[in-house]
Amino acid sequence: MYINGRNAVLEAIRSGESIEKIYLQYGLPPEGTEDLRREARGARIPVTQLDRRKFRDLERRARLGTRSQGVIARIDPVDYVDIQHLIAATWEKGEIPIIAVLDRITDPHNLGAIIRSAECAGLHGVVIPRKGGGGVTDVVVKTSAGAVHSLPMARVERLVDLLRDLKGSGLRVVACAESGSVEYDRTDLSGPIALLLGSEGEGIAPELLAECDQVISIPMAGSIGSLNVSVAAGVIFFEALRQRRELERSGRTESGHR
Amino acid sequence: MYINGRNAVLEAIRSGESIEKIYLQYGLPPEGTEDLRREARGARIPVTQLDRRKFRDLERRARLGTRSQGVIARIDPVDYVDIQHLIAATWEKGEIPIIAVLDRITDPHNLGAIIRSAECAGLHGVVIPRKGGGGVTDVVVKTSAGAVHSLPMARVERLVDLLRDLKGSGLRVVACAESGSVEYDRTDLSGPIALLLGSEGEGIAPELLAECDQVISIPMAGSIGSLNVSVAAGVIFFEALRQRRELERSGRTESGHR
Repeated sequence: MYINGRNAVLEAIRSGESIEKIYLQYGLPPEGTEDLRREARGARIPVTQLDRRKFRDLERRARLGTRSQGVIARIDPVDYVDIQHLIAATWEKGEIPIIAVLDRITDPHNLGAIIRSAECAGLHGVVIPRKGGGGVTDVVVKTSAGAVHSLPMARVERLVDLLRDLKGSGLRVVACAESGSVEYDRTDLSGPIALLLGSEGEGIAPELLAECDQVISIPMAGSIGSLNVSVAAGVIFFEALRQRRELERSGRTESGHR
Repeated sequence: MYINGRNAVLEAIRSGESIEKIYLQYGLPPEGTEDLRREARGARIPVTQLDRRKFRDLERRARLGTRSQGVIARIDPVDYVDIQHLIAATWEKGEIPIIAVLDRITDPHNLGAIIRSAECAGLHGVVIPRKGGGGVTDVVVKTSAGAVHSLPMARVERLVDLLRDLKGSGLRVVACAESGSVEYDRTDLSGPIALLLGSEGEGIAPELLAECDQVISIPMAGSIGSLNVSVAAGVIFFEALRQRRELERSGRTESGHR
């Protein structure tokens, strides 16, 4: 998920690779990085300078040896899809779309576990914001058990625009938050739906909550009153799957009666 | 969760404190630790010798300064309860016992998240084995959001004996495993029950599976086919709570009709 060396990185930018960030070792001669900086700017890829010690740390973590020539690029390992195409394709398959939208889930273990659960519960995709999330790091890939590669993922500039678009496409936008007034198992999760989840610390941004059709919560019995976000996501994803399985069963029974 | 110094540790052993392990710096004069070793042996507390560097690391992690005199004891932060007392007390409160039994959940994040979810789903307690689990470390306490202190926890020598005792006390022992033939939402989880969970890597030990009344699984839709164990635990705990809430609702409705 890293490439290194001035020419390799330059080539990756020109070929449109999905580069997250470029790291330069502080103090490189400017003439060696001028074209790199220009191309990165053109492709809107952030460039960060690191001092010698931090740059060596990155080389070690990225297992690159010391032949980076002071230039390393981090590649996003996910092939992102277009969310509108994904929803259209889901309808065309004769399935009812259900996706998750993640607002600022920065902890990589939680992000990975949520993507894994989404795959296991049969969701059609997961949407993350281009900025403000943690990005798909090695830990996310590992914690997701590879789901980042098998489950379609989309990345958008602004979640608020996404939610409006999703509603326009006929999806019900349901936020999952402790403040939710509707119990998660007393609402219909079998229709076309986007489930919006926020981080434990920050919750869901108010501007996003304002776009939601409904806010659901998981009733609790103890005194702590809040679940780990990846557990809460799992509970809700599998309630949705449970309802969809029930529906399928009753559909099969009905056709059996005909 | 640590105490240090020869006399303080000696006193803790004698007063029956729940000491997990004693660490001695390698090369201490034997006459200074002879009585300590003897008392530790008597109380069946494991003693480990660490070289100077590792001992300093432990001092740093435990934030003890350097006044340990080469002797550190790790105290378990949990006040364990007796599981039979807990079950009896639950019945006496007019509640139907539901507990979780954890077989070799060694990852501290998973262990902490499971204990947190158990508290939030209204389980009456969690049982861990004295050996072979990860123990309740700082990470477990933090990940549990404090649930290790608010949810009753028990620790037993042999899980297989525990399961037999639980069945003797009228609990149904239900294992949750990918191999399970019964779907988790198609079985009654509202009665007196012990939910047995194993680690992702190892699963549940065969000798324990043999003691179970039923093995349930979570039907999946994707290609990965296995959830993070703390997510799986959450899904099952909250299905149990859902069924118990349904039962309570229908109970209330019935009395309303009278």
